[in-house]
Amino acid sequence: MALKAQVLYDFTAEPGNNELTVKEGETLTITNQHIGGGWIEAQNSRGEIGLVPEDYIEVSWWPLCVVSVSSLSLSLFLSFIHHFYCSFIPHISPLYVIQASNGNDPWSVWNADPSGGSNNNWASNPEGTQTGKTAPDPWSSVSQGHPQAYQGPAEDDEWDDEWDDMKSTGGYAESESGDGGGIQRGGAHATSMKISLNKFPGFSKSGPELYLLCKQLTKGKDKLPIYVGEVGPVWFYPETQLDCVVADPKKGSKMYGLKSYIEYQITPSTTNRPVNHRYKHFDWLYERLLDKFGSAIPIPSLPDKQVTGRFEEEFIKMRMERLQGWMSRMCRHPVVSSSEVFQLFLTYKDEKEWKMGKRKAEKDETVGVMIFSTIEPEAPDIDLIEVDQKCEQFSRFTKAMDDGVKEILTVGHEHWKRCTGPLPKEYQRIGKAFQNLSSVFNSSGYQGESTLTDAMTAAGKTYEEIAQMFAEQPKKDLHFLMETNNEYKGLLGCFPDTIGVHKAAIDKVKEGDKLVATSKITPHEKVTMAKRVSVMSYALQAEMNHFHSNRIYDYNRVMQLYLEEQVKFYETIAAKLRQAHGQFTTM
Amino acid sequence: MALKAQVLYDFTAEPGNNELTVKEGETLTITNQHIGGGWIEAQNSRGEIGLVPEDYIEVSWWPLCVVSVSSLSLSLFLSFIHHFYCSFIPHISPLYVIQASNGNDPWSVWNADPSGGSNNNWASNPEGTQTGKTAPDPWSSVSQGHPQAYQGPAEDDEWDDEWDDMKSTGGYAESESGDGGGIQRGGAHATSMKISLNKFPGFSKSGPELYLLCKQLTKGKDKLPIYVGEVGPVWFYPETQLDCVVADPKKGSKMYGLKSYIEYQITPSTTNRPVNHRYKHFDWLYERLLDKFGSAIPIPSLPDKQVTGRFEEEFIKMRMERLQGWMSRMCRHPVVSSSEVFQLFLTYKDEKEWKMGKRKAEKDETVGVMIFSTIEPEAPDIDLIEVDQKCEQFSRFTKAMDDGVKEILTVGHEHWKRCTGPLPKEYQRIGKAFQNLSSVFNSSGYQGESTLTDAMTAAGKTYEEIAQMFAEQPKKDLHFLMETNNEYKGLLGCFPDTIGVHKAAIDKVKEGDKLVATSKITPHEKVTMAKRVSVMSYALQAEMNHFHSNRIYDYNRVMQLYLEEQVKFYETIAAKLRQAHGQFTTM
Repeated sequence: MALKAQVLYDFTAEPGNNELTVKEGETLTITNQHIGGGWIEAQNSRGEIGLVPEDYIEVSWWPLCVVSVSSLSLSLFLSFIHHFYCSFIPHISPLYVIQASNGNDPWSVWNADPSGGSNNNWASNPEGTQTGKTAPDPWSSVSQGHPQAYQGPAEDDEWDDEWDDMKSTGGYAESESGDGGGIQRGGAHATSMKISLNKFPGFSKSGPELYLLCKQLTKGKDKLPIYVGEVGPVWFYPETQLDCVVADPKKGSKMYGLKSYIEYQITPSTTNRPVNHRYKHFDWLYERLLDKFGSAIPIPSLPDKQVTGRFEEEFIKMRMERLQGWMSRMCRHPVVSSSEVFQLFLTYKDEKEWKMGKRKAEKDETVGVMIFSTIEPEAPDIDLIEVDQKCEQFSRFTKAMDDGVKEILTVGHEHWKRCTGPLPKEYQRIGKAFQNLSSVFNSSGYQGESTLTDAMTAAGKTYEEIAQMFAEQPKKDLHFLMETNNEYKGLLGCFPDTIGVHKAAIDKVKEGDKLVATSKITPHEKVTMAKRVSVMSYALQAEMNHFHSNRIYDYNRVMQLYLEEQVKFYETIAAKLRQAHGQFTTM
Repeated sequence: MALKAQVLYDFTAEPGNNELTVKEGETLTITNQHIGGGWIEAQNSRGEIGLVPEDYIEVSWWPLCVVSVSSLSLSLFLSFIHHFYCSFIPHISPLYVIQASNGNDPWSVWNADPSGGSNNNWASNPEGTQTGKTAPDPWSSVSQGHPQAYQGPAEDDEWDDEWDDMKSTGGYAESESGDGGGIQRGGAHATSMKISLNKFPGFSKSGPELYLLCKQLTKGKDKLPIYVGEVGPVWFYPETQLDCVVADPKKGSKMYGLKSYIEYQITPSTTNRPVNHRYKHFDWLYERLLDKFGSAIPIPSLPDKQVTGRFEEEFIKMRMERLQGWMSRMCRHPVVSSSEVFQLFLTYKDEKEWKMGKRKAEKDETVGVMIFSTIEPEAPDIDLIEVDQKCEQFSRFTKAMDDGVKEILTVGHEHWKRCTGPLPKEYQRIGKAFQNLSSVFNSSGYQGESTLTDAMTAAGKTYEEIAQMFAEQPKKDLHFLMETNNEYKGLLGCFPDTIGVHKAAIDKVKEGDKLVATSKITPHEKVTMAKRVSVMSYALQAEMNHFHSNRIYDYNRVMQLYLEEQVKFYETIAAKLRQAHGQFTTM
């Protein structure tokens, strides 16, 4: 599928520079996005090819305002209840490697110098939507390959799976301590895409305007209602919480054994009938959810593909644990879990249904900002000032929480290293030193020596046991604290994009009077924009309330688990030492 | 007092080399000990001065076999009971700096190449007695000053105290962690002196021979009896254990305030009447005890003069604690505590009695190996094979224990650093991270947030408290474990010299037949030597049994204290965390 673009502003080519003169409103076909330096190569309707400034055009990602009606079933979802997933996470021992967030910080988009040069596609991408893949550093070279989000849906080539399954990583990166688990991973996918809106004065139809000024809104059964509950606007929650179990990873192979892959079994709580999926299917689902809901709902990235394990089993276990976490979080979301594509993934009956469902999902046109056209808040419109305030508040909160979560990850990572590295070594040395001295004492030939030496040996062995306990403890408590915060780090990394869409919409509505005055829009359109930004705000509020209620549940649960295990840990140490103490005699 | 020397072997001077021809048996006056290269400058009875090989002469340290009878009172000491001192040690926080023992290892005397060059006074000192001061590295330059043990008793110059009291150390050496107490000290004084016996074939009257072949043994009330108890030979123990309290350090000054010193108050349990002493008086006492008992009883060095503290108060406290430990150990020893010089130190009534007592003690001639002449075992003689075996056994044990004690000190030092440095920092950071996230949560504006945030803040504060607990714990337990092992390290450092005297005596007795055959000694003298080496062995056994019983008591006590405090520590942490856990609600 060729990539189309609309010209936003007139541009006159300079002779001899291989440039192309274009007019506002003209449609171009992109022939090369990898020119760099702020340029794109395009072909006009007359077949002429030349360079155009990338900021002067808008890449068409979906046919404007032609919204399909999907057959989303809402029959499952009846009321708003707090019933969240219980994890089936096995105990394993990852080493968390905290990546420096500089240069890849999705939040930096709001701090960056707005006049900064837009010398690549990412920085000047005028769409305001999320992209599917790990974001490249926006300031690095453009030549790093084309982001998948810009491409048409991938062909269903079952052979194109090198990127999917395990690769030999040529040994695993081991931590300095050399102890602890062998899993090492980066942070969650950063889903940030540097949204660069309003670079040019005046009005453009890019980004949220697609929805704000859309003539014709979707009608029918696929509506997403928003109610006002105790905590404010909320999504419509199903009576029964969907959940699923990811389990039973199996190795499959193709091409007469030349290629191997892992297939996971996913069993949804609704049908209780397992389906099989490979990582690449999860990735396909992620892409669809991101395309469809990403403007309204932060879709967390899949567990990093670059997870590497010391052993294949560890790697598979770790990926499975995290796929379980990701699926559970998606199941928990009322909008995502009830979507047709998500239901397809969980309940397809045969290969034919799967393939047909895939094709249909890939053709879904209610994607990007158009998701807002399906949202129906059962509440009066709110004015722009309140919309703006709410958006700012969510932005501040998610940024602050992102910092807090990263701090816990950094500190937890340090603590993990110490608990599995130097601390057990030290307690072991203390234990050995007591035992060695005891064995010297035993050689004294002095009578009545054994009362002391038996006790000292026991004390020494106790410290060796404590060493072992220290080394094993992080798997029992810190692991879950880290996993939860790691998941939230991934989730929070999606907010800049989601909130960015809202900010762009608000900015546009703020310009309403000016746009009317310059006849860019009609007074009626201005009123429509205000109503629609209110709808967007309800969606954002519902999403934030969903986030908050999940967050409170998750942190309450993980803190309790952490402290419970810590109490057990220190109590066991104290009990062991009390026993050792009891072996000494009062002389 | 001029230093006299006896010529052991004929030496013929080479012309033009400033050498002096001497004959065996001749008496010389040492005029310069600091020549180096194995030479000493001496004057013969005819007034001629010249260089003599230091290995050819024997420095006279006391008039041979003229033993004075001191007025030692034994009336206080009636039976052998285990009643040891209770410490009055205040809690302070030293940083133990473990010195590498290479080059200064008192045990190396038995491992060193016996043919190694004796190019200075220490290495070739033919006396076989201990010296009072920190031993210089025997392989370093001779020019480092004269060891006090070779000098006559120091004049009672109250002005000569620069070395005694505190000096500005130009800042204190701080550990890397920067935390913990500010006291830093080296190991205990190494009292090792490289005893180099039997360098020449044939018989010499140096070292233990002074006692083994002494014509006339002391008679009278100053006898030191040895009994055979349940554990074997034991000293005569007093019914009431002497003890004393070192307290109330006061700053004094002299020379119109130009010089300052610290005076400690020592109150013995017998008189309950305090006496005052400065560090230099302790040092004088140490010298006397070492001279008098060092061949039979390891006299541990005083706490290192080089203790430096961050603050004057810390320095004084630390020195006081260790002077208390040293005095308590001396009080515990039945022979030392009942000696006239020790009693003088503890009970002198006025300046006059102190000065007269000092002069008398300095003139005491029952010093060095001659202490054995006062020992009277109430048991049959033991044969040389058994004497030899016992000596070897004690040698092996004390060497092995020295290694074990040093291992504990090294490990404990590491543990101290970690407990006061990185660990509290880490727990504090964990606590801060929880509190920071909690405070972010508080800003959400979501209702019902406080149930979680109150609990998370409490959990964060709990980890800050745990951080504080970690930092303070070593003062409560590890401190005493370290102090005890440090004291034993000092004590064990004295054994090579003490055991060396015995080994030299055994070697001499082994040569008995050869010496008789070559008419160096009479057959009667050979029998006397065998009897006397048996007496020496009883003394060593009594001393080892004293050491063992003290060791078992000390380690039993310190291990109990350590484990007791460790149990409390971990129990308190568990209790704090249990409380923090209780603040979370089950949702």
